[in-house]
Amino acid sequence: MQSDKELKEVCTASAEIFDGVVLHLYRDEIRLPNGQSGVREVVRHVGAVCILPLFADGGVLVERQFRYPHDSVLLEIPAGKLNDKREDHLAAAQRELDEETGYFAKTWTSLGIFYPAPAYADEQIEMYLAEDLCPDARGRHLDEDEFLTVEKIHIDRLCEMVMRGEIPDAKTQLAILKVKRLLDERKRQLSREADG
Amino acid sequence: MQSDKELKEVCTASAEIFDGVVLHLYRDEIRLPNGQSGVREVVRHVGAVCILPLFADGGVLVERQFRYPHDSVLLEIPAGKLNDKREDHLAAAQRELDEETGYFAKTWTSLGIFYPAPAYADEQIEMYLAEDLCPDARGRHLDEDEFLTVEKIHIDRLCEMVMRGEIPDAKTQLAILKVKRLLDERKRQLSREADG
Repeated sequence: MQSDKELKEVCTASAEIFDGVVLHLYRDEIRLPNGQSGVREVVRHVGAVCILPLFADGGVLVERQFRYPHDSVLLEIPAGKLNDKREDHLAAAQRELDEETGYFAKTWTSLGIFYPAPAYADEQIEMYLAEDLCPDARGRHLDEDEFLTVEKIHIDRLCEMVMRGEIPDAKTQLAILKVKRLLDERKRQLSREADG
Repeated sequence: MQSDKELKEVCTASAEIFDGVVLHLYRDEIRLPNGQSGVREVVRHVGAVCILPLFADGGVLVERQFRYPHDSVLLEIPAGKLNDKREDHLAAAQRELDEETGYFAKTWTSLGIFYPAPAYADEQIEMYLAEDLCPDARGRHLDEDEFLTVEKIHIDRLCEMVMRGEIPDAKTQLAILKVKRLLDERKRQLSREADG
């Protein structure tokens, strides 16, 4: 079996194609593991956070938001870009939750980082579970070009929707399945403690 | 609450920025729901398939592949781009599984379509569960610029790795959690039938 080192591709030249507001596109020439040359088209992105806001009764705050690339309204958990690469992920998650839903959370748990499209984008998204929610008296305050509606759906129903293929957004599917697993694990833990 | 129609953004002008091999980048001017104008940077992508190849003993074929945007080797399920927009997804999945792992599968189940990065990419990926695996006598036959290693890891161990944040690739996390849920559901179904 090849070692990780033997799979590595090395950049030999990089050309910036587009320096946009959200996307930064590069066309890099590379040396493949077999010594031949190749090309990689890469989207550079500042990174993002996403949040599954969970009430004690199992309700989850989700959003309906128009997604231009798909020309359709998608059901998604709250999420947003970092202000810059160095921004603290938790601070960004707290800001996005408040802005998009008008809620604060007292308890935050990181559910890890994921790469949405590792073949062509360097974007990393940190996922959070937000609990002990309380409303911001000022309500929500969206960015100027942001339009979305918020509703509350039970985690069990969301889980069924994911399994039936009714929620196409990857991060939302992932957060729902992960949190559902976490809640099941907590339940088992509690029942073991009650038994023990 | 706003209706879906009231969230819609309308394209008023579209400029092609880059027409690459994998990525096609556009900078579109749009009309926002409030009548103001805005800009959307959009990656157009042909679409892809991914496959979780599952043996009867719970083993899963996974790959280690260098991902240039992240400058690291990632653990992923087999996946690949469609040859063109109209390609049959199942045929593409069967081809990619054979090419990358050297296995055929007799039983295929679609686990639905997901959008990896709906904020800026139109890519859609259809996910499959592949079962009743049998080796291709010719072994695997990778694309010229493709270098990866294949190994077998049990679904339960993969599930723990996902929950511990050890598998950053989104589609791989998603497939593992989805298939694990499906297998648990099958087990419950069988035990209900045995009881009934």
